[in-house]
Amino acid sequence: MNPTVAATVEETRQAVAAARRRGLSVGLVPTMGALHEGHASLIRAARRQTGFVVVSIFVNPTQFGPHEDLTRYPRPLQQDLEVCGREGVDLVFHPEPATVYPPGFCTYVEVTGLQDVMEGAFRAGHFRGVATVVLKLFNIVQPDVAFFGQKDGQQVRIVRQMVADLDVPVEVRVCPTVRAADGLALSSRNAYLDPEQRRGATALHAALELGRSLIEGGERDPERVRGAMAARIGAAPGAVLDYAEVVAADSLRRPDRLRGRVMLAVAVRFGSTRLIDNVLVDVPDTHSV
Amino acid sequence: MNPTVAATVEETRQAVAAARRRGLSVGLVPTMGALHEGHASLIRAARRQTGFVVVSIFVNPTQFGPHEDLTRYPRPLQQDLEVCGREGVDLVFHPEPATVYPPGFCTYVEVTGLQDVMEGAFRAGHFRGVATVVLKLFNIVQPDVAFFGQKDGQQVRIVRQMVADLDVPVEVRVCPTVRAADGLALSSRNAYLDPEQRRGATALHAALELGRSLIEGGERDPERVRGAMAARIGAAPGAVLDYAEVVAADSLRRPDRLRGRVMLAVAVRFGSTRLIDNVLVDVPDTHSV
Repeated sequence: MNPTVAATVEETRQAVAAARRRGLSVGLVPTMGALHEGHASLIRAARRQTGFVVVSIFVNPTQFGPHEDLTRYPRPLQQDLEVCGREGVDLVFHPEPATVYPPGFCTYVEVTGLQDVMEGAFRAGHFRGVATVVLKLFNIVQPDVAFFGQKDGQQVRIVRQMVADLDVPVEVRVCPTVRAADGLALSSRNAYLDPEQRRGATALHAALELGRSLIEGGERDPERVRGAMAARIGAAPGAVLDYAEVVAADSLRRPDRLRGRVMLAVAVRFGSTRLIDNVLVDVPDTHSV
Repeated sequence: MNPTVAATVEETRQAVAAARRRGLSVGLVPTMGALHEGHASLIRAARRQTGFVVVSIFVNPTQFGPHEDLTRYPRPLQQDLEVCGREGVDLVFHPEPATVYPPGFCTYVEVTGLQDVMEGAFRAGHFRGVATVVLKLFNIVQPDVAFFGQKDGQQVRIVRQMVADLDVPVEVRVCPTVRAADGLALSSRNAYLDPEQRRGATALHAALELGRSLIEGGERDPERVRGAMAARIGAAPGAVLDYAEVVAADSLRRPDRLRGRVMLAVAVRFGSTRLIDNVLVDVPDTHSV
C-alpha cells in the first residue's frame, strides 16, 4: 500500500498535527528520493524510535552547483513510494520546487567554516543549500527526531552544528552507512556507474579501511594516512581523486597529529560520476615513551 | 511584582510548555531592553492577543558592528523588569551572551538582497545578526505570535522574509511606531542625545512627513522626494545624514517612479548617536491624462 503523499506545507502540517493529537512522536527522514537500502535503514530506525514517520522526497536544487547532476539525478517516484509503503512510512512529503523556493526566495543558512572544507571546497554553495533545505524541512514537519546517514559525514556534522547553533528543537540521530557486500557505500549515484567503474568504486572503502588500519597500527601522521589513501584510490582504474582527507571529527580541520575522533573522507570521480565515503575512527591513546 | 526571569533555554522552554499545557497561546516580544513606551505598546498588543507573554531582553552582540555602541548600549535591567511586571509580562528571557553564542558558534541566517540596502549598507553584518538572533529566539520560545515595531521598518521586512522563506511556524505582527509629542520616534538611543541634539532630532520625523505630503500632493519622482527629505534634515543643527531613501515597501529597492506601497526611511547621526525612522505610504493611484 502506498503511503499518503502531501505536496504542500499545509497538508503536511495537518497530517503531523493529527498524529500529535493521537499522542504520537514524529520522525523525519529527509531524502532526495531514489531510495536504496541506506534510506530503508533510516526509515526502519525512525519506525522503531518514533510513532509517526515522515519521509521527504525532494531533489533540492540549491545544493547542486551549476555544472552538477541536478537534471539527471534519478527520480523514480513510483518505486520510492513502494519502498515507503513497504517500510510502513506514514506520510511522504513530496513538494514541487516552487513550493520550497517560491519567487523572491532569498534567505539562506550558512554554517561558516565547516561548510568550506572537503565537499564544500569542491562544491561551492552545496552546504548552504543543504542547511537551508534541512531547516525548512524541520520547520515544515516539526519532527521530534530526524534521521541521517553517516554516509554524508560532513553533512551530518553541519546539520548537527546548525541545530545546536540555531536552537532548533529537533533531535538529530545518525545511522551507520549501509554498504554493498564488497564495501561500496550505497548511494543513489551508484546507478550512474558502468560495470568497470562499479568495480573500481570499491577503492573508496578500501582506501578508508587502509587508513583505519594504518592508524590502528600506530600511525599518527595525518600526511602519511592521506598519502596512503590517495595512492590506494589512484591505483583503481578510471578513478580521479578529488580529495582524501583526515580531519578532526568535530572541527573538520586537518590536525598536525592524529588523536581523539577523526574522520577519514574521500571523494572520487569515475567519468562524470562523483562518489564520496567516510569512516570515523577513534584514535587509540598512545603512551609516551 | 517582577515577572519570572529565565536565563537558560531549558527554563524558558519549560515555562512555555507549562503555559501550553494550560491551553494558552504564546506571544513573544523580542527586545534589547532599555524598555520605553514603544516596547510597552508591543507588550500590550501581546497581552491582548495571546495568553502567555514572553519578553526577551538581550543586547545582541552580532548585530553591532566593531565600532558601534555595543558596550555603551543602556542595560537598565531592574527598571526593565519593573516595566515588564507593570505590563503583566509572564516570562522574561534574559540570557547571558555565552548562552546565546557558545564557543564554536558559526551558523548565520542571511536574507540576501534585503539585508544589503539602507541600514545594511551602513551597518555591515547588522541584519545577519538580527535574522540569526530572531530565529534563535523563535526556536527557543516557540511562540505562536511575535510582535515587532514598525520603527525598525527594514528589520520588520527582513524578519517577515526570513519567516516566509524558512517556513518558520511563527506569525509576525507589526505595531505602529510610538512617538514623542513632537514626533520623535521613541528609541533606547534617544537617551544618548543632549538637549540641543534632542531638539534637532525632530528633523527625522519632519522630513518623513514632508516626503509623505509631497507624495500626497502628487509628486511621483523619488529623487525629488529624497532630495526634499535630505534638505529638511540638513537644515537641522548638528544633523549628519546617513541616508534619506524612498523604496518599494516590498523589495526595498529604489523605484523609477513612485507607486504602490513605499517606505520613506532616514538615518541621521547627531555626534556619535545614530537615529533611524521610517513611514509607509500608499501612493495614491494617478489617472493618466
